[in-house]
Amino acid sequence: MLPFNGVKIMRILGIDPGIAITGYGVIDVAGNSFLPVKYGCIRSDADMPPERRLNILFSELKDLIIKYRPGHMAVEELFFNRNVRTAMVVGQARGVVLLAAARAGISVCQYTPLQVKQAVVGRGRAEKKQVQYMIKVLLNLPEIPSPDDVADALAVAVCHANSSSGLGALL
Amino acid sequence: MLPFNGVKIMRILGIDPGIAITGYGVIDVAGNSFLPVKYGCIRSDADMPPERRLNILFSELKDLIIKYRPGHMAVEELFFNRNVRTAMVVGQARGVVLLAAARAGISVCQYTPLQVKQAVVGRGRAEKKQVQYMIKVLLNLPEIPSPDDVADALAVAVCHANSSSGLGALL
Repeated sequence: MLPFNGVKIMRILGIDPGIAITGYGVIDVAGNSFLPVKYGCIRSDADMPPERRLNILFSELKDLIIKYRPGHMAVEELFFNRNVRTAMVVGQARGVVLLAAARAGISVCQYTPLQVKQAVVGRGRAEKKQVQYMIKVLLNLPEIPSPDDVADALAVAVCHANSSSGLGALL
Repeated sequence: MLPFNGVKIMRILGIDPGIAITGYGVIDVAGNSFLPVKYGCIRSDADMPPERRLNILFSELKDLIIKYRPGHMAVEELFFNRNVRTAMVVGQARGVVLLAAARAGISVCQYTPLQVKQAVVGRGRAEKKQVQYMIKVLLNLPEIPSPDDVADALAVAVCHANSSSGLGALL
């Protein structure tokens, strides 16, 4: 990214991967300020075969990357307590997300929910609603993005900005 | 595939997905006989970041599909009793495998280990060594393919041939 007012802009794509809904959030970071560029989610129909759903995810993600040209991707790393089958299915979506980054030559960083909360709210045990509220404030959004997957994607992007530019102290 | 001696040939790509090693096996099926076309494995270095490893898997799989033009892909569906983290990592590799099929317009069928054993040996509770021995016999191979991932990939391809052409009674 070219410098803006002498401050280098970093464009980050945050992703919260899932097979039914993948949240995404593109933000620009310049100095200590954040600008939301584009956010939303990629959905696919549960009736489709898994390979087709993964192809929709990959294609839409590829289009986003081509359009917004992020320099970094940040992905939420999940270790939930659900069953192995669920982990396998979410893993498939994550694999496709990571592949999309690799094929576009974008570096990927992964963050645990604890790291995301720590970076956004300053407390690893923060409540989900608190994280969502801070995302709205930090990105100066008219309202909390919904569904949750979108807010989570923006949160992991903010977490990456914080982690990579030493903004932590400013938040 | 064009008919050969009046018998339609079906070309199947069997896959046993993994992040360190993905086994693959391309077989031709004509009537009640099997012909091994190409088998081996795709490996990636554990020191690499996951997205790069997934990209190697995707690229090599894509090359195989372009070179051998299988009409069908058969993938082993695993429900192992290991931890959620392992399932997530294997899921990422599976996601990339399914995506490669979808992008090449190849139909995918998934089979459980029980179904594979049933199809290859005729007994769902068969031992791994028995399945490997039958793969060697059915495909007329000089020896049991190694590592296990290659034999497993050929086994799921044979399972698909069996399931889709009603060969079960002949095995």
